[in-house]
Amino acid sequence: MEKKIKVGVIGATGVVGQNYLRLLQRHPWFEVVHLAASPNSAGKKYADAVAGRWHMNVDIPEAYRNIIVEDASNVSKAVGKCKIIFSAVELDKKAILALEEEYAGKGFAVVSNNSAHRATEDVPVIIPEINHSHLDIIPRQRKKRGWKDGLLVVKPNCSIQSYMLPIFAFIKAGYPIDKMILATLQAVSGAGYPGPASIDLIDNVLPTLAGEEDKSEVEPAKILGRIEGDRIVSDTSIKISAHCNRVAVSDGHIACVSLKFAGKKPGMDEIIGIWRNFSSLPQELKLPAAPVPPIIYRDEPDRPQPRKDRDAGNGMAITVGRLRPCNVLDIRFVGLHHNTVRGAAGGAILTAELLVAKGFVK
Amino acid sequence: MEKKIKVGVIGATGVVGQNYLRLLQRHPWFEVVHLAASPNSAGKKYADAVAGRWHMNVDIPEAYRNIIVEDASNVSKAVGKCKIIFSAVELDKKAILALEEEYAGKGFAVVSNNSAHRATEDVPVIIPEINHSHLDIIPRQRKKRGWKDGLLVVKPNCSIQSYMLPIFAFIKAGYPIDKMILATLQAVSGAGYPGPASIDLIDNVLPTLAGEEDKSEVEPAKILGRIEGDRIVSDTSIKISAHCNRVAVSDGHIACVSLKFAGKKPGMDEIIGIWRNFSSLPQELKLPAAPVPPIIYRDEPDRPQPRKDRDAGNGMAITVGRLRPCNVLDIRFVGLHHNTVRGAAGGAILTAELLVAKGFVK
Amino acid sequence: MEKKIKVGVIGATGVVGQNYLRLLQRHPWFEVVHLAASPNSAGKKYADAVAGRWHMNVDIPEAYRNIIVEDASNVSKAVGKCKIIFSAVELDKKAILALEEEYAGKGFAVVSNNSAHRATEDVPVIIPEINHSHLDIIPRQRKKRGWKDGLLVVKPNCSIQSYMLPIFAFIKAGYPIDKMILATLQAVSGAGYPGPASIDLIDNVLPTLAGEEDKSEVEPAKILGRIEGDRIVSDTSIKISAHCNRVAVSDGHIACVSLKFAGKKPGMDEIIGIWRNFSSLPQELKLPAAPVPPIIYRDEPDRPQPRKDRDAGNGMAITVGRLRPCNVLDIRFVGLHHNTVRGAAGGAILTAELLVAKGFVK
Amino acid sequence: MEKKIKVGVIGATGVVGQNYLRLLQRHPWFEVVHLAASPNSAGKKYADAVAGRWHMNVDIPEAYRNIIVEDASNVSKAVGKCKIIFSAVELDKKAILALEEEYAGKGFAVVSNNSAHRATEDVPVIIPEINHSHLDIIPRQRKKRGWKDGLLVVKPNCSIQSYMLPIFAFIKAGYPIDKMILATLQAVSGAGYPGPASIDLIDNVLPTLAGEEDKSEVEPAKILGRIEGDRIVSDTSIKISAHCNRVAVSDGHIACVSLKFAGKKPGMDEIIGIWRNFSSLPQELKLPAAPVPPIIYRDEPDRPQPRKDRDAGNGMAITVGRLRPCNVLDIRFVGLHHNTVRGAAGGAILTAELLVAKGFVK
Repeated sequence: MEKKIKVGVIGATGVVGQNYLRLLQRHPWFEVVHLAASPNSAGKKYADAVAGRWHMNVDIPEAYRNIIVEDASNVSKAVGKCKIIFSAVELDKKAILALEEEYAGKGFAVVSNNSAHRATEDVPVIIPEINHSHLDIIPRQRKKRGWKDGLLVVKPNCSIQSYMLPIFAFIKAGYPIDKMILATLQAVSGAGYPGPASIDLIDNVLPTLAGEEDKSEVEPAKILGRIEGDRIVSDTSIKISAHCNRVAVSDGHIACVSLKFAGKKPGMDEIIGIWRNFSSLPQELKLPAAPVPPIIYRDEPDRPQPRKDRDAGNGMAITVGRLRPCNVLDIRFVGLHHNTVRGAAGGAILTAELLVAKGFVK
Repeated sequence: MEKKIKVGVIGATGVVGQNYLRLLQRHPWFEVVHLAASPNSAGKKYADAVAGRWHMNVDIPEAYRNIIVEDASNVSKAVGKCKIIFSAVELDKKAILALEEEYAGKGFAVVSNNSAHRATEDVPVIIPEINHSHLDIIPRQRKKRGWKDGLLVVKPNCSIQSYMLPIFAFIKAGYPIDKMILATLQAVSGAGYPGPASIDLIDNVLPTLAGEEDKSEVEPAKILGRIEGDRIVSDTSIKISAHCNRVAVSDGHIACVSLKFAGKKPGMDEIIGIWRNFSSLPQELKLPAAPVPPIIYRDEPDRPQPRKDRDAGNGMAITVGRLRPCNVLDIRFVGLHHNTVRGAAGGAILTAELLVAKGFVK
Repeated sequence: MEKKIKVGVIGATGVVGQNYLRLLQRHPWFEVVHLAASPNSAGKKYADAVAGRWHMNVDIPEAYRNIIVEDASNVSKAVGKCKIIFSAVELDKKAILALEEEYAGKGFAVVSNNSAHRATEDVPVIIPEINHSHLDIIPRQRKKRGWKDGLLVVKPNCSIQSYMLPIFAFIKAGYPIDKMILATLQAVSGAGYPGPASIDLIDNVLPTLAGEEDKSEVEPAKILGRIEGDRIVSDTSIKISAHCNRVAVSDGHIACVSLKFAGKKPGMDEIIGIWRNFSSLPQELKLPAAPVPPIIYRDEPDRPQPRKDRDAGNGMAITVGRLRPCNVLDIRFVGLHHNTVRGAAGGAILTAELLVAKGFVK
Repeated sequence: MEKKIKVGVIGATGVVGQNYLRLLQRHPWFEVVHLAASPNSAGKKYADAVAGRWHMNVDIPEAYRNIIVEDASNVSKAVGKCKIIFSAVELDKKAILALEEEYAGKGFAVVSNNSAHRATEDVPVIIPEINHSHLDIIPRQRKKRGWKDGLLVVKPNCSIQSYMLPIFAFIKAGYPIDKMILATLQAVSGAGYPGPASIDLIDNVLPTLAGEEDKSEVEPAKILGRIEGDRIVSDTSIKISAHCNRVAVSDGHIACVSLKFAGKKPGMDEIIGIWRNFSSLPQELKLPAAPVPPIIYRDEPDRPQPRKDRDAGNGMAITVGRLRPCNVLDIRFVGLHHNTVRGAAGGAILTAELLVAKGFVK
């Protein structure tokens, strides 16, 4: 990339916005030039706007400290400054729906972390290794909405990456899935900041994430769906039942998965081979954030573990372990991913890279 | 009980033995008069023998501080002193098999926490509310082995109580189970002392308890089995698949359960009624350690939780919550129990009470 | 007590209010008949008002579930119903100052957990075993303010009980203190609910409680002060320097104390004797909440510890350990107390008992 | 460095040895060519020898997986292979004393993590930025012991680095220290593996590290001492009193420090300047592991914190914060360092670099 592509982050002062800045600070393709947040932060230097509420383990990157934060609701402030907008605004659903569309309408490639548009029919929910082809809806999205250069894509909930890549590897290898039951052990960073109170996770777990269960069951269907005209039609053929739990872990979501194949079943060794050989378009295109390999299978009986495996592939790889037969369905395994990297800002950055590589951002 | 029944604890200095003493200190029927452990401890006052390794949250009960610890391998030391032996010895499997049989042969009612005899055909594995009728094998056990007054019963692994009582309530109500998939979040006290290293559970979980999974899948079959002659034949009709995880919780095991009924299915309200109305022989006999009710269903969406629910019914009740349909099998719920009370020493004490009430200890 | 004294709790829906109800549910002298909170809760049954935000480990006591919550700002609602008001209202300081005075003016004995009135000259800050004599200011408080039967007393910050009782035992034994340096390791419940975010205390501590340090240094002076006319004059002769830290503990504050005596020094054995023999008016009066003994010295090298010692004396005793010479000042030790019992609601209840025993509540 | 210096690690399979390998894997000067451990491991490939007990968060470096582990007690196995021996053997004190001397006698520069030789008069205890001049004892050490090229230096206990660098900066700036009281909050990795049991640090802290207190008080005197002939004479002019606590943190020790200067006192701004401008020989020599700057002062009221600051300067910098006056002594502050990097293997590696730069390793 001879010249970096200029990008903006809206909702830059929140914890998701902070994760974007942390991950983008030495990005080879993207240069953050625009930061926007609520009217309260507007007009302040970024370092002042986040003083006392910067929650990353690394310091505020020097390059962003003195950028003057704009009002995210004032779309015109971004015009002419950047091409890609990473959206992490914290508003009510209706306001997010409208604001993200407004940015797209003004010509920005909007990549959003919010759940608001996940159910919008012409907005793809992207896990780059799985449904990169869903980006092909963009011309129809633009046409339908009268957008010239703008576009809008979103990333899915952070609870699903631990199993979506492993099961997509099966599907791609010719082994479709019939049903799966999964139990997640999710890190507290998945709940944003402040997230759960300390007192609720000291000597305790919260086996009670009903909202996460819904997303874990519904979002896979859209990701595995297909484009029909100007909408993405979900593939609801896989039945999913999720038990979602919150545990005292900072980063790194675990999924304990039991699944049944729809037809023939691969052997155990074959499965490990499928995972270890899995690769997809992001890897072929050598996208900067694409992990190689995307799926790591570990033989050790005591892996994966959040603290030891979440940073694999710079937080972008999925680590799988403990493959064994299931007494009820066909197989069992444990998957793990870094929820604020692969499951959030990192996944969105990889999506933006894909948009660039496929020519949707000019 | 006009006069208390004298009992002994072998393996009294280990953490399971300590739990026995903690729970027995004000027992209305039992009086601890005999403590035995390894030769190292023999001859010492109990307080001296456990100095520096008493791990309970309450102090060493005064009544036991000055009891002289005997060598557990010297069975004759217990003869004439007590009738019931609670076994928590920490030896290799072969030695436990022999020692517990030796105690039973000398006339003691042996109630054991060890896994050694769980697979022995004429030794019942008891959860009092479920298979109290398995105690009827005792006359045949005595006859076969030539024991006069002695007997040997064991309690199951601590990972299964969270779901065994809830599903037994279904079976008893006429709704047999076909299969179940469960994920456990197990407390560290279940691994004994010292159990897992701190460093392995700070900002981490261990989704890797292969040994616990085996027990969670196999032991229910024997508990649900039936007596045939002088052996208990397992009922293997329920297929169970377990994912067992260790989390940073001191006490309180959780099971996230999905299950399918074998025939007709009860409605959701009916299920709650079945649980809330469940009662069994220990409750009818008003055994001192029997919780009333044995199963507590909580409506709140954020329950059960280990810290808030483990002590229900003095640690003997099972708390259930989050009943909802399962997208793959029939229903889902979360069960929780106190692993060192109901799941260990408390369960064994309730079993001993049952032995007394049924006339097997004289 | 033939007939129980009727009491009310204002701020009853907050976590301090919940602690009051938890501790008062089987109180031999007091009967809770009045619950008040913000206008939002007014008119609701207590169980409905706290639904989804009851944070105790025990359930809502049955006796309080159906009490209709009143608006705490409407003092007249309490008139005629009760004599003692436990105040745990969460308002800004000015509003608390006024509201608590209004209750006292209407004839209630107000015992407050709030910090608002701690600096008010005629309002005593009570640790019952230490400055019970400060209650003698009440007649002057009443006269000055024109209150007939009402009165107003407060309890100190929860960070100081771990060392105040141990050092007061020295003072009472004739060994005044010159200076002390202390480091606290404070539990998260001391910060109310939700208190610190989980993410900030997973694999972390917060050595940063500047506000707690101020209180830990200033409040002891008033507690050790004397009545002069209608005000309490602080005794600032002890220099205190505090380092306050927040750690991932639910309940139980630790203080690591180094201190220098003002004059002669007691020997090590003498100190242990002073602590073990310490007793005060609450013990002599056999007040229901008074722990016997109030100070527990433990010889074991690995004590005190929060989980093992916080519940000593029903959470009202102070546990001390690790007495040893200090290389810089005179002696060192570790003190521990239960911050939401002795350090908060329990301490206030003991104060109310003292008010009754001394005849200030009729 | 044109050609890397070959080094060995003895005790390579233990957790300290693993830390060495983790930190040395891309070292610009050193190449690990020799790994030795107990006879049990001897003859195995390193990866096999540590299978099931590799405790680092990163994988076993590829370069070391296939090295055949030697028996550490067989010194001849190292002869001719490497020049520097990093010692992390886990033996009894007497055996360590003899073995490390044997390696030095055979011509190796031995840099040890063990405490065994810390009290040996001619063995310097090195914190490179503080007492690099103590390496000048090496010629006399060699002469006295009849060693030709060998030498023996050790690193101090991991509990002291958080305050030793900050106070040495004062001393170097002309402000000697009279006395200090400190409380540490120490991470579990400081206790080796497995270290404390999980159950002892869930909802708990251990304010009970007597052994750590001794080292924290005694070792600084030797580090601040001077060479007299062939021994290092401690400077005992600073009185130190330590309260050492273990907390549920993986890595990162905190020290809460109160201190009194021996003479004139620097102002608060001056102190911050002293810390921020502090630099020493390792920085001047641009040693690879030397952090620049070695001391980081943070203005934010909520720093330092273990998770956010332990990795500063690649784990080699000391982070200081919360400077404020002390009501008893002169000043107070909080220091933090990474105990397994700066406080252990990293400190030893920096010492080895210093030995090379000063010409003691040829």
